[in-house]
Amino acid sequence: MSAATKDATRKATVTTPTDRTIRIERVFDAPRDQVWRAFTEPGLLAQWWGRGNKLVIERFELERGGHWRFVEHSAEGVHGFEGRFREVTPPARLVQTFEWDGMPAHVVLETIELEDAGEGRTRVINTSLFHTPEERDGMLQSGMEGGLDQSYAALDRLLATMT
Amino acid sequence: MSAATKDATRKATVTTPTDRTIRIERVFDAPRDQVWRAFTEPGLLAQWWGRGNKLVIERFELERGGHWRFVEHSAEGVHGFEGRFREVTPPARLVQTFEWDGMPAHVVLETIELEDAGEGRTRVINTSLFHTPEERDGMLQSGMEGGLDQSYAALDRLLATMT
Repeated sequence: MSAATKDATRKATVTTPTDRTIRIERVFDAPRDQVWRAFTEPGLLAQWWGRGNKLVIERFELERGGHWRFVEHSAEGVHGFEGRFREVTPPARLVQTFEWDGMPAHVVLETIELEDAGEGRTRVINTSLFHTPEERDGMLQSGMEGGLDQSYAALDRLLATMT
Repeated sequence: MSAATKDATRKATVTTPTDRTIRIERVFDAPRDQVWRAFTEPGLLAQWWGRGNKLVIERFELERGGHWRFVEHSAEGVHGFEGRFREVTPPARLVQTFEWDGMPAHVVLETIELEDAGEGRTRVINTSLFHTPEERDGMLQSGMEGGLDQSYAALDRLLATMT
């Protein structure tokens, strides 16, 4: 069992560099190419993004201008998420929009950076830019952090099976 | 011939209330219900939005959460535009996102307000909110204002045929 799988309660570091941004940093116990694959291959994304819930990937066009759309089926209901890719630079950088069906046309610009953290580990930095401070605060108060830790714990488990 | 059709060179008033917004104000020589229809019925939109160019309306789901997508066919090429509705409040207010295929995932939040300006006229106030000042400046430098005046002149002509 690797350090990552043992450390199931590892938390992401969430900060707010400006009043319209959220920055999330987390180290994963796998090399960058593997983490990139987990973020960009639908078959792998479906295994962790939904935190254990069934995730239907309706659309995933991994190129500049391409669209993506995920539908998560949980006990609480069905939730759709979608967006479009602005930049796809493997294995380092993914820039995309993010929108939840429950708040349509509230669009977040998400920049995901993958850095080599040494010793076969990868640092993932996810920076979200909102149109307004109010939308940013709404996201912080939505239970995002708990959901994120669940997703990332599922990603830890997936990465452990890929090594 | 009405005052609106004679005044073919009428210009919109463009201001920049903040470093991430563009505000456009223009009075039209038609009552609010007619202007609302011209902004929200695909058959009417297709007659003015494209400034005389062929406009294919691929999607137009006029409700909260609905998507829209227009493709303009001009001598310079084919340009796609799309977004999603946040708020649809006839005949007063339409809030939607706006994105041009040429700059994917650069999303503008657009609020269109229709006010009764008296004497059968309507004031349209269009406020665009960008994620960054740089994106706002890019839009200002794109020739937007000339294109807008062409669109609104075409809208004047359409409204004159509706009375």
